[in-house]
This record gives sequence, structure tokens and C-alpha cells, in this order.
Amino acid sequence: MGAVIYDRVALIGLGLIAGSMGLRMRADGLAGEVVGHARTARTREVALQRGLVDRVCDTAAEAVEGADLVVLCVPVGAMDAVAREIAPHLASGATVSDVGSVKRDVITAVGPHLPDGVHFVPAHPIAGTEHSGPESGFPELFEGRWCLLTPLSDGPEVERLARLWNALGSHVDVMEPDHHDLVLAVTSHAPHLIAYTMVGVADDLRRVTDSEVIKYSAAGFRDFTRIAASDPVMWRDVFLNNKDATLEILGRFTEELFALQRAIRTGDGKMLEDYFTRTRAIRRGILDAGQDVDVPDFGRAVLRKGTAG
Amino acid sequence: MGAVIYDRVALIGLGLIAGSMGLRMRADGLAGEVVGHARTARTREVALQRGLVDRVCDTAAEAVEGADLVVLCVPVGAMDAVAREIAPHLASGATVSDVGSVKRDVITAVGPHLPDGVHFVPAHPIAGTEHSGPESGFPELFEGRWCLLTPLSDGPEVERLARLWNALGSHVDVMEPDHHDLVLAVTSHAPHLIAYTMVGVADDLRRVTDSEVIKYSAAGFRDFTRIAASDPVMWRDVFLNNKDATLEILGRFTEELFALQRAIRTGDGKMLEDYFTRTRAIRRGILDAGQDVDVPDFGRAVLRKGTAG
Repeated sequence: MGAVIYDRVALIGLGLIAGSMGLRMRADGLAGEVVGHARTARTREVALQRGLVDRVCDTAAEAVEGADLVVLCVPVGAMDAVAREIAPHLASGATVSDVGSVKRDVITAVGPHLPDGVHFVPAHPIAGTEHSGPESGFPELFEGRWCLLTPLSDGPEVERLARLWNALGSHVDVMEPDHHDLVLAVTSHAPHLIAYTMVGVADDLRRVTDSEVIKYSAAGFRDFTRIAASDPVMWRDVFLNNKDATLEILGRFTEELFALQRAIRTGDGKMLEDYFTRTRAIRRGILDAGQDVDVPDFGRAVLRKGTAG
Repeated sequence: MGAVIYDRVALIGLGLIAGSMGLRMRADGLAGEVVGHARTARTREVALQRGLVDRVCDTAAEAVEGADLVVLCVPVGAMDAVAREIAPHLASGATVSDVGSVKRDVITAVGPHLPDGVHFVPAHPIAGTEHSGPESGFPELFEGRWCLLTPLSDGPEVERLARLWNALGSHVDVMEPDHHDLVLAVTSHAPHLIAYTMVGVADDLRRVTDSEVIKYSAAGFRDFTRIAASDPVMWRDVFLNNKDATLEILGRFTEELFALQRAIRTGDGKMLEDYFTRTRAIRRGILDAGQDVDVPDFGRAVLRKGTAG
């Protein structure tokens, strides 16, 4: 059991991330009480059944009453409305945080609604699976993963939130919000859009049947379908709210893809081999840095050693 | 132990696929003898040490002498030269096969060299990992995977080769060579080129450090780096030899990507959400069809149930 870090944590939204936070906080005694709210009655019911939180509230306003930490775990596009609703009910001295995959737009959406005396410390745990909803959380989700904080100023409330994320199993880094959005456009947002696109192309191609795509997808494509199975609303909001960085990276990507297409068309084997040799070295760097194991786990908890071939 | 299917099998090239075939054939007694040849002395040495084959020959010509099955396991671009070299040494009635990822160009490169009385049955086992070379093979590689045969005519030699692939653990389908090349362009070749491209973009982007890419790559990008770590020479030859189908799919991909980019730029959330909902359904289809487990294994042997979280 860890030490109690917050007396009462309110989770607004009860999907994969909030569910995993709640399960871990309750298991390790990181909060005196964990309360939660979700928009639909069904989600609230599953959350209670699975014990994601100690107590479920019918409104977000009710959930944040008396909480010293409020974490917004809703799609980025819903942040503005939620912040507006809870603002009058926040306790003085409370910390408000979030788990959104983009940070600049969340700061713009949430910040102006918060009253004086409330601390806003945006956060982004870089962890997930292709599953979503209140059934999908598990307490080890954040184990060994990074959580990025993009605070607007320094202070003890930043350190306290970092302690919580450490206790949830994460490494913590602090980053400037715009830089966060660019880094994530490269490592996550553009790859997701690309995977969505490729899966869409396969589905559209009438000369190849769906069952052929499904049967013969062992290499490459299957990993794309996994990425492309992620929550549609969450990802819609990510792209709409990290528009500039995502479009910049996609522009670079298209440029590069055209160069490789030209090499294929003109039969430039040397260019292709050199390119592929360079990208292989990047993969080696990731393995050497200990940021991946040789068995893919797609952001899940690190596999116990020796359990997978 | 299975029944002996061929008296002597000659593997030309001793990388991931040949090594996995040799280990499985020897373990299960599928061939009276397995002989092999590889171009470099180091590969031949490792092959002997790891017991990939019973006997290693210094030349491909020597390896095929008296073999009733010869399997060409070299990059597609090397098929022509190898076929030319072995042709005068092939036993009458022998079957020649290959494991290349494209079929039309292999048929064009190999077919004309083969003497009368030798049967050519091209094959493509859809299995692999991002590792390559004589150290990388393992006997379960083909377990539960598909092997596509693209024979030029029917006959008992096709059925015999299908029996071998079944014994190696694979399901077997027969397909027309050009259709094979189109299907694989969708499910494997285009996804690989796209993954290579995205990893190249990340590496080029000077405003994001390599260590940031490496540390924060949990979602999406990490899976791309895995795909992009595959053997550079093999993939160079795949693209050069499946040029038309790959360029066609990439053309469709670019068109689709532009439509999604425009939706992001114009803020068309409905289009994005609908698109992502459709691709999620495709993933569900793959899971329902039993072609994947919920834990990624990237073409490796299917994980034993209950061993991975």
C-alpha cells in the first residue's frame, strides 16, 4: 500500500484511462476516496460493478464537491463543456488535471473557466490499448509508461500530481504544451491517422475480398488494424485539436512517401535499401534504450518476463 | 513425428524462413535429409551450429544434387541468378519451389531456366518477424499461418508440397499469381512501405529529438518501428518486383489520406468519426474470424493461451 496522496479524487469520465487510474488508486490506497461520474447511466453502472471507483455521482458537479484532485478523463472535445459545468463547484485549493492526448487546446478550453485558487496541471499519460469504455481498464496500464505534465507554472501541486503518477507506475516528465503536441503528432497522432487510412483503403478495394484481407494479414496490416481499432470519438477529437502539428507531420510524411514511390517506379534499389537500413537502426535504438521488449505489447503493462515467446 | 514427405530437401539461402523450415522438418522427420547452402561462409557456419540443416554445401549446385525438393529462400532479386546456377544440376522429376513475397516476377525469373521434367510450384508462406538471418529461425514460425501456392498447373507435386506446408503447421491456399501480388500489396507490401516512411520522417524531424521519439513512442509509432526493422534487402526486392500493385495501392492510400487531411483541416468531425468507426469494425472482423489473438504476436507462433496479459 502506498501513502494517501489525495483525500478525495474525482474522475470525470470513466473509460479506459479513468478506470485504470481508479482501480490502481483503490488497490494501492493512493486516495482517501475515489468518486466518479460518467455521462451515460450504463457506464456509471459498469463502473460500480467493476469497482473502478468508491462512489458514482449522477452529475459532474456533484462529483467534484470537496475533491482535492479532479481529473478530466473525457474526449478532448468535451473538455470545455465539462470545465464550465464543474467550475462553480470546485473546492478552493483543488488541483484540476486531465488526461487528454493534446495539451494546447485543452489548456485553452479548460483554463479560462477555472476560478482563482484552483491549480490547473494538465497531464497526458502515454498509455493505452485499442480497447475503450468502462470494461477496458486494468490497474497495470501505466506501469513503466511515461506521463507528461505540461504545467503553466511550477509549484507543490505539480510535484504532488507527479507523485500520484509515479505511484500509478509511470515515469514523469515535464514538457512545454506546444512541444508536447508536436512530439505526440510524430509518435502517435500521425501514425494513427495513417493506420486508419490504410485499413480504409483495404476495405474499399473491391478486387480483394474482405476475407482475403483478413486471412492473409499476418504481416504489417494486422498491426495497422489494431491501431485503427482505437476509440473513434477520442481520435476524432485528437485530430481536430492537434490540427497544425498533425497536418505538418502528414505533409512531411507525404513528401517522403512520394520520394520512396519514385524510387520504386524508377527501380532505384540503392535508395530503398539505404532508407530501410536507416529505419532498422532506429528500431535498434528503441530496443537498446529499453523502451520496448522484443514482444509487442501495444502499450499494455510490460509482460512478465518469461511468459511470452 | 510425421511421415517423410521428401527424401532430400535442398534449402538455398539460410535465413529466417529456410531456418524455420529446416528446424521443423528435422524435428518432425518430414524429410530423409535436409541440405542447405548460403552465400556467405558465416551463414553456413551458423546454420550448422544451430542445426538448421543436416548438411551444408559450399555451392547451390552441389546442394540440389539428388534433391526431390529444392526451395529457393533468397531475396526475390537473387532468384534469377540462383535458378540459372542450379538448373543443370536438378534431378529429373524434382520439384522446385520458393518462398518469395511476390510471385509473378519470381515465375518470370525462375521458370525459363528450369529443364523439362522439373516441376515448378511457387509458394509464399505468410509468416515472419522483424528479425532475419540464420540466427532468427524457429520451428513454430508457420504454426497457424497461411501458405499460398501459385502453381502453373495442377498435379500430384502441388498436393505433395501442400502436405509439407501442412506438416510445417500452415494452412494452404492456392491462388493465381497476379491476384496474390495484389492481395499482398494491400496486406503487407504497402503497410511496410508506409511504416518505413513514417519512421524515416520521425528521424528527420530536427525539432523532435531521437530520445523523445524513443521515450514517448508507446502508442502507434512503436509498432511502426517494429515493421520498419524488417530485412532491408528482402524488402527492397519486394518493392522492385511488385512495383505495379504496390504503386496502385499507394496511389489509393494517398488519395484517401488527402481526404482525411482535408477533413482535419476543415474540422469535419463527422467524417473522421464515421471513418474511424468503420475501420474499427474491420478489426473486429479479424478477431471474429480467429485470425488474431488479442495480444499482438506479429506473425510469431500463436501464444499459448493464458501466458500473456
